[in-house]
Amino acid sequence: MRIGRQTVKLDNPPVIIETSSIVGVKEGEGPLRSAFDKVLTDDTLGEKSWEKSESMLQKQTMLLALEKATLAQGDIDYILAGDLLNQCVGAHYSVRDFDIPFLGLYGACSTMTESMSIGSMLVGGGFANHVMCLTSSHFCSSEKQFRNPLEYGGQRTPSAQWTVTGAGCAILASKGSGPRITHVTTGKVIDKGVTDISNMGAAMAPAAIDTLLAHFNDTGIKPDEYDMIVTGDLGVIGSDILVELMMEEGFDIRENHRDCGKMIYDIEKQDVHAGGSGCGCCGSVFCGYIYRELKRHNLKKILVMATGALMNPMVVEQGESIPAVAHAVTIEN
Amino acid sequence: MRIGRQTVKLDNPPVIIETSSIVGVKEGEGPLRSAFDKVLTDDTLGEKSWEKSESMLQKQTMLLALEKATLAQGDIDYILAGDLLNQCVGAHYSVRDFDIPFLGLYGACSTMTESMSIGSMLVGGGFANHVMCLTSSHFCSSEKQFRNPLEYGGQRTPSAQWTVTGAGCAILASKGSGPRITHVTTGKVIDKGVTDISNMGAAMAPAAIDTLLAHFNDTGIKPDEYDMIVTGDLGVIGSDILVELMMEEGFDIRENHRDCGKMIYDIEKQDVHAGGSGCGCCGSVFCGYIYRELKRHNLKKILVMATGALMNPMVVEQGESIPAVAHAVTIEN
Repeated sequence: MRIGRQTVKLDNPPVIIETSSIVGVKEGEGPLRSAFDKVLTDDTLGEKSWEKSESMLQKQTMLLALEKATLAQGDIDYILAGDLLNQCVGAHYSVRDFDIPFLGLYGACSTMTESMSIGSMLVGGGFANHVMCLTSSHFCSSEKQFRNPLEYGGQRTPSAQWTVTGAGCAILASKGSGPRITHVTTGKVIDKGVTDISNMGAAMAPAAIDTLLAHFNDTGIKPDEYDMIVTGDLGVIGSDILVELMMEEGFDIRENHRDCGKMIYDIEKQDVHAGGSGCGCCGSVFCGYIYRELKRHNLKKILVMATGALMNPMVVEQGESIPAVAHAVTIEN
Repeated sequence: MRIGRQTVKLDNPPVIIETSSIVGVKEGEGPLRSAFDKVLTDDTLGEKSWEKSESMLQKQTMLLALEKATLAQGDIDYILAGDLLNQCVGAHYSVRDFDIPFLGLYGACSTMTESMSIGSMLVGGGFANHVMCLTSSHFCSSEKQFRNPLEYGGQRTPSAQWTVTGAGCAILASKGSGPRITHVTTGKVIDKGVTDISNMGAAMAPAAIDTLLAHFNDTGIKPDEYDMIVTGDLGVIGSDILVELMMEEGFDIRENHRDCGKMIYDIEKQDVHAGGSGCGCCGSVFCGYIYRELKRHNLKKILVMATGALMNPMVVEQGESIPAVAHAVTIEN
């Protein structure tokens, strides 16, 4: 049921029956290590290109989710997946080995909640019993594609974020036990003129604010009803902008705002500058740490909002700014 | 309601209340000229890069759809859009000027029916009253990104297809008059090992066959119940493969199969080799010619299946083959 310009309330809220998460070496050295299903010992995953490594990462994460949920491929009605790579090759080269109907998404780093948003409506609308929501990112494939190949050895600016090597997969179901997705707030594409390809946090914050305001206005939910309002990968700079500008709009989220990009690394010690980013940042932190805390009932009601900078380096070189989008889902135990 | 492994039957079939289509100069010289809303006189649309031209093309097509439907932006609950460009910049840089919730898709040339598939379920499930389904392609931006910049003057192989400069937008609604989407069959990602980036038809045909077989098996519909089974952009080569292999599978679609890539150009005279391709091929031909024929009741029941080659030139250079996907929707008057 639509309850506002951007929000749907699910009359039959789908259950997140299982998740899986796999992260890279560096992410496994961070504070959330114990919350991931698997930490890689080799970020190549034995593949000969970074694109193939990322694809293998998605594939292993998807297989792990099926195994943990004791479901077969034939039980899954749709895979909703995407990633940062051109033509989403991370997703396509992993799902081609699966016998499951596929709907490809591009939402940049917002993909985890974009897939959960559409997935919730497909399950909630009675069109599917089980949907897999899947995404990934890989530091090495992302640097190569969006900035410079690692071998170039470029200096990183202080506002730069570190793309998470990681993947997350969540299985939504029409029945079963677990936390449920009760509301879906879909973002608009917002562009406030940021042109710095090393400051994704600033590019994404306006989209996060826009969606968050829409969410509160549409639902009437107050910020303090949430145990956690978690953004995907605003990092240090984007988070500061979000919290400050939300305050100006009359919403105090200082107490309960968290950001996956700040949580996944020890920002001081791990030399990640403004924090983590990438589809796999929200993907792995939600499917790893946050889902675990929901299952342990340490969290009762949360808002998860992944944010995506829809950045194409060539178009930015043509003088364009970087649009962004943020999609939010309410999850309740 | 799910009626098979890959198919949903819509209990509340959404209505396609309006469409719009804009095509480039060459497409306007083809046999469908009179069926498009607008034919460009300048494929740059006054922009300084081909990417910006394509984005402007999407924007104008979207505005035209709103105008034809006499709807305001505030009436549209979701835009579902994507295109072939890296990070789907055609879509993002057009929708950033719109005040409408946005869900980004990547299905390569299958985007028109991918958006109509998801859109049908969002409307059919009661989550939206109006959804815009939008896609585009542009010959010049595509050649530059996937093969060679035009200035290079590369010779085209006989199996190459000509990317359509065009865009299509369809507005789905929960009520109103017009043809309705009654079934949605979602494809799997299929890869039969084709590695030739100048033979998209052969890369996509196996996905088309897979989805078409699933559609007939899931629904029990017979091929001759359809006035037209129209594929997106298999072109001459892919269409031949499809028809021949469907015959071997026991389904004779010789009489009613059409392909937008063969329809949009005069293949002999317009020097397009194996025919048209691109998201905008199915986009403009469906939203232009086919929708017009549905409105005129010259077509009663059709299957529209756009096909996408999920091709990333770099990964193909790494030795990979080209996966593909096809999504089908049944439309009934």
